[in-house]
Amino acid sequence: MEEQAEMVGRAFVDHYYHLFDSNRASLSALYQPTSMLTFEGQKILGADDISSKLNNLPFEQCKHIISTIDSQPSSPTGGIVVFVSGSLQLPGEEHMLRFSQMFHLIPGAEGTFFVQNDIFRLNYG
Amino acid sequence: MEEQAEMVGRAFVDHYYHLFDSNRASLSALYQPTSMLTFEGQKILGADDISSKLNNLPFEQCKHIISTIDSQPSSPTGGIVVFVSGSLQLPGEEHMLRFSQMFHLIPGAEGTFFVQNDIFRLNYG
Repeated sequence: MEEQAEMVGRAFVDHYYHLFDSNRASLSALYQPTSMLTFEGQKILGADDISSKLNNLPFEQCKHIISTIDSQPSSPTGGIVVFVSGSLQLPGEEHMLRFSQMFHLIPGAEGTFFVQNDIFRLNYG
Repeated sequence: MEEQAEMVGRAFVDHYYHLFDSNRASLSALYQPTSMLTFEGQKILGADDISSKLNNLPFEQCKHIISTIDSQPSSPTGGIVVFVSGSLQLPGEEHMLRFSQMFHLIPGAEGTFFVQNDIFRLNYG
């Protein structure tokens, strides 16, 4: 179960940040009406509002560089927690922004997973 | 439910790092045989081995300073995910180490929670 969690976590992270950097609007498909995002302390509920938040961030292009991915099974029913650290490159910015983010993935239809919990923080200091 | 998650998350974080800094051996009571810790990429399963890992870290005294706590309900059955950022002060070290850590808390007996998932990473760069 642990190995499967690692595989799913890595595949999810690749997919998520690829979509984020190439077609951010399509991220909404990974969330559900019950999904929760806390973005730098701001709480947002549901796929529609989460999608709106992500699509209205004050930059159009960006590139995520992933440093670490740690995944664990969260429950006997197939949930997975994924913890990511990495850097965010914004256009025209010399320095990259370090961030940490966690996802709680829940099994959906036909072997897919959706994001139940998403917490994002920039690393300062 | 979201407010309760925030309250439980904050109370847990206060309790956890207070024990860590004052009586690290007592942390074992917060874990169960099914609990998982990933510490800087190293995976450890079960309260006994987790306690052993935490008690054998290469420093005796330390002090955690917490910067942010973000909590969300993880499921309708009462789980809570908690994301923490902060700094770790080690004896004789001038600079503090920045860290991020996530916990997945599961309701136990009599209103208590135990740690099902624990992922710790130092922040670099």
